[in-house]
Amino acid sequence: MGCAPMGHILYDEVMKYNPKNPYWFNRDRFVLSAGHGCMLQYALLHLAGYDSVKEEDLKTFRQWGSKTPGHPENFETPGVEVTTGPLGQGIANAVGLALAEKNLAARFNKPDCEIVDHYTYVILGDGCQMEGIANEACSLAGHWGLGKLIAFYDDNHISIDGDTEIAFTESVDTRFEGLGWHVIWVKNGNTGYDDIRAAIEEAKAVKDKPTLIKVTTTIGYGSPNKANSYSVHGSALGAKEVDATRKNLGWPYEPFHVPEDVKKHWSRHVPEGAALEAEWNAKFAEYEKKYKEESAELKTLISGELPTGWDKAFPTYTPESAADATRNLSQQCLNALAKVLPGLLGGSADLASSNMTLLKMFGDFQKDTPEERNVRFGVREHGMGAICNGIALHSPGLIPYCATFFVFTDYMRAAIRISALCEAGVIYVMTHDSIGLGEDGPILMLRPADGNETAGAYKVAVLNRKRPSILALSRQKLPQLPGTSIEGVEKGGYIISDNSSGNKPDVILIGTGSELEIAAKAADELRKEGKAVRVVSFVSWELFDEQSDAYKESVLPAAVSARVSIEAGSTFGWEKIVGSKGKAIGIDRFGASAPAGRIYKEFGITAEAVIAAAKAVC
Amino acid sequence: MGCAPMGHILYDEVMKYNPKNPYWFNRDRFVLSAGHGCMLQYALLHLAGYDSVKEEDLKTFRQWGSKTPGHPENFETPGVEVTTGPLGQGIANAVGLALAEKNLAARFNKPDCEIVDHYTYVILGDGCQMEGIANEACSLAGHWGLGKLIAFYDDNHISIDGDTEIAFTESVDTRFEGLGWHVIWVKNGNTGYDDIRAAIEEAKAVKDKPTLIKVTTTIGYGSPNKANSYSVHGSALGAKEVDATRKNLGWPYEPFHVPEDVKKHWSRHVPEGAALEAEWNAKFAEYEKKYKEESAELKTLISGELPTGWDKAFPTYTPESAADATRNLSQQCLNALAKVLPGLLGGSADLASSNMTLLKMFGDFQKDTPEERNVRFGVREHGMGAICNGIALHSPGLIPYCATFFVFTDYMRAAIRISALCEAGVIYVMTHDSIGLGEDGPILMLRPADGNETAGAYKVAVLNRKRPSILALSRQKLPQLPGTSIEGVEKGGYIISDNSSGNKPDVILIGTGSELEIAAKAADELRKEGKAVRVVSFVSWELFDEQSDAYKESVLPAAVSARVSIEAGSTFGWEKIVGSKGKAIGIDRFGASAPAGRIYKEFGITAEAVIAAAKAVC
Repeated sequence: MGCAPMGHILYDEVMKYNPKNPYWFNRDRFVLSAGHGCMLQYALLHLAGYDSVKEEDLKTFRQWGSKTPGHPENFETPGVEVTTGPLGQGIANAVGLALAEKNLAARFNKPDCEIVDHYTYVILGDGCQMEGIANEACSLAGHWGLGKLIAFYDDNHISIDGDTEIAFTESVDTRFEGLGWHVIWVKNGNTGYDDIRAAIEEAKAVKDKPTLIKVTTTIGYGSPNKANSYSVHGSALGAKEVDATRKNLGWPYEPFHVPEDVKKHWSRHVPEGAALEAEWNAKFAEYEKKYKEESAELKTLISGELPTGWDKAFPTYTPESAADATRNLSQQCLNALAKVLPGLLGGSADLASSNMTLLKMFGDFQKDTPEERNVRFGVREHGMGAICNGIALHSPGLIPYCATFFVFTDYMRAAIRISALCEAGVIYVMTHDSIGLGEDGPILMLRPADGNETAGAYKVAVLNRKRPSILALSRQKLPQLPGTSIEGVEKGGYIISDNSSGNKPDVILIGTGSELEIAAKAADELRKEGKAVRVVSFVSWELFDEQSDAYKESVLPAAVSARVSIEAGSTFGWEKIVGSKGKAIGIDRFGASAPAGRIYKEFGITAEAVIAAAKAVC
Repeated sequence: MGCAPMGHILYDEVMKYNPKNPYWFNRDRFVLSAGHGCMLQYALLHLAGYDSVKEEDLKTFRQWGSKTPGHPENFETPGVEVTTGPLGQGIANAVGLALAEKNLAARFNKPDCEIVDHYTYVILGDGCQMEGIANEACSLAGHWGLGKLIAFYDDNHISIDGDTEIAFTESVDTRFEGLGWHVIWVKNGNTGYDDIRAAIEEAKAVKDKPTLIKVTTTIGYGSPNKANSYSVHGSALGAKEVDATRKNLGWPYEPFHVPEDVKKHWSRHVPEGAALEAEWNAKFAEYEKKYKEESAELKTLISGELPTGWDKAFPTYTPESAADATRNLSQQCLNALAKVLPGLLGGSADLASSNMTLLKMFGDFQKDTPEERNVRFGVREHGMGAICNGIALHSPGLIPYCATFFVFTDYMRAAIRISALCEAGVIYVMTHDSIGLGEDGPILMLRPADGNETAGAYKVAVLNRKRPSILALSRQKLPQLPGTSIEGVEKGGYIISDNSSGNKPDVILIGTGSELEIAAKAADELRKEGKAVRVVSFVSWELFDEQSDAYKESVLPAAVSARVSIEAGSTFGWEKIVGSKGKAIGIDRFGASAPAGRIYKEFGITAEAVIAAAKAVC
């Protein structure tokens, strides 16, 4: 494998880690971007003594239930830092890991006690280099001067369709120089071990820039007939070629056999890792004595335990409180949380002043002010999401949030999907919503209607550290509605008003976000006409689904089929809630350019429409 | 406006176009990436004499029903080439336009008659430069040597969040040199008209590389109090500042007033444009005489009329035909179509051999072989989609297709959404499907089950020139099923087998794609047990929705509530089809790593599951 020397040198000589405690805080982080050389990583973990990858695991590569899926996944295999399947995600995750280190080091290190100090290494290939997300993340890494990020570019000239000459002839070196990186070229990556070692030393010496080490290699190095061809990219060599390769490389052993001298050589990593960790523990004990407050804070970041009483910090609202856009209410929540959650940090993709995501008590995280917590991502939505995944997976107590307009979730969907897959509790603050589809899979989609619901949405988001949350927030002002509550939001859907009795309303009106107000208005009118009307706020489908059947029946009784939903988005999926006899009001076309009030009217997202629909169904 | 000089020089001095026929074939193309200076474009179109933008339209900027929405849209405003709202899409569209020109010029120009010859100009800003999609597309433009692509980078140092210093400090010049572009810097873009003119001349002289002209400007130039600040980015100056700016620039006229001498100056573009078009028409008349075949072909590309009998080219299949993966059947369709559709061109994002998208009769579109029609996009899904949008909008008869694994639609969702919005009939070939959500909005989602259905899907895709199609295709082999047909696919959903009578089956089994076979198997078993079973292939929800009520009732009679659907994807949305008494079989979690058969079994996507569900509902 062309990238073997880099991985080998890193795990065997350069990195600090403890195989018996893969999650020891101050270890160096290692990311294989994409599935790049995933078998290599498993083999290295195995050699180094990680319990997570045994010989059987290597033999069951890509099989059901194994610890060695085709792409390394952090939640499957201890020792794997992040989940990097799709191309370009890994390098962006690595930027997030390096950002986290730089931020924590600046906040917690003391002149007499450096408690945070590790490198982030990443190996990426040609495919990752072609992806736009990689350029976005690397532009930020250069801007932030992430000097402890060291990326190996495995320059093997082969991607799935063959020689990269057919689609990728740019000068990567020059591009990275433009991005503000230090660039080193190792011309013989197959056997040039000393050159690789020297490059790592040089990279470490450059403290104000991330380093790209371009390592020119031969894919399938050692295979006499398949080296340097795309046929070794994602496929096994086959028995015959494996034999030929063994002969060529002078490797006489059985498959999966680790010779005794190799075992002996690698076995030192267990005691060395334990010693490294012990050394750090001792240093931290000293730190704890000297710096009580800081050490307590850092411990919550390492453990992920939320500080006691954190949720008392939320602002509360009554119907008398001023009408406001949920994006503004969101800012009040974020700023309240920043005071009590040391792990909260994040920002927007060049829309901070629109998304309302600035933490007023902090400055910008920048090259020379890395202790600050407002992150300026620029117009790089996809990179932003993947960087936040890296931050979230750096330490359990780090709670990254990121923001853009709701419609631009399309730009970052792959990163959001990976958040869900890799259990990264990123908080996605999506404003100016015109809500599209409910998200698929384990992502919490929350669309609060006012201040109490926005606070509730943040409470849910903070509590869900293993799944991402998307908050869809309004640009326009919304009134504080009677009946809304944090507790209600925690159930996903709940009754905000009802003039019926016996759980038998004539009709149930279901609203979300900015349309809950419309549902409430329609209910007022219908009640004047003598109808028994229930209004349900449906903040999160996913949370509601998780409630007990009894609770669901208490909110949406099966016997009441007269139901109307209203949401200024696609009606796709609403049939499940309103049933075949109900009616879903929404927008099943593209939007238009006009002031908001006019748009709502033109698209029929109005109380009148709800009233008409309610009369039609009951 | 900082970018006014560039736009002004282009429309007034450099570009060839005919305001009375905005769609004349050989005009230069002009793209404003993002909403960058959209008011500028409207003003220029108005001055130049386009009927599409009248004075009233300028006054109703961003209002309901106006021809001047906040982001220029090709389907709203003749003279606007593409729809570029979201950042980075426009520059990628421009790469597609320039690719189309290079391909058509190579195919149709003759030594004695150059019939295709135009430039593609684009203005893009800092925001576009930050987006990964822009880097992807520009890397390809450099690789392809698109010498007639000239991009102006409006380097004004301001984005929505303020000075670009906070997030964007890379050297764009150096990056573009790395991408293989010719780079020119105009230091004074506010008043340096001659420098801009000289830069355009220099760019035209460089024929083997695209050119980036970095034009350093002041945003809001001329406004004494707001120039060079983010407050002029997306907002109006306000009456007071407009007054001050008028004074500062010495502009004494009323709002929207065009002075007579200016009118007179610009009015020459109408006769000039007519003359340019007449000249081209004369040249083409000569070409038609000399090159009958080529001119006939080019005319279909310009008009978008499909050649008579094109749909006779499809391969046909019977149940005796070999089982095959729909991705392979797709390749048979693509290759059959390439023979009869001169506008078909496209490729894959480094997965051609997996997506099976190579046109065997053609070579690769490359810098030195631009007449070929296999496009190698590299691992750049997002750029690929947006480039295809540009190709589709270049000429009505160009039919671009592009391919990747279905799951990576996430990487290119914003481009797919723009395809739908801007009425670009791109064909998305998505293989290895594990179908996610049905797409929202006017996009045709097609999931064929075998050869006839794959052919049907292509027929539908080719016929839909104003909306994109996504074909979800299998990696694994599938049998040719009895009862499938091209005609059936054209209706979206249709009966492939039925042993009931009187439109009253005991149960309806509904399958899509690779799961149609499972539904058919389950039906066989249930029929053995005496049940009257209908099997419906549900290839496209969107097409089925468009059928008459009578047709829909004939396929899914309201009286039959016993329905079971099976699709190896999310069940989200299926309630609409199977109803509250039916059952949707699917996968509502993330996938796993294992051989395909094992996965289907583990996830319960089996005939046994369908049979059990069928018994439960009837």
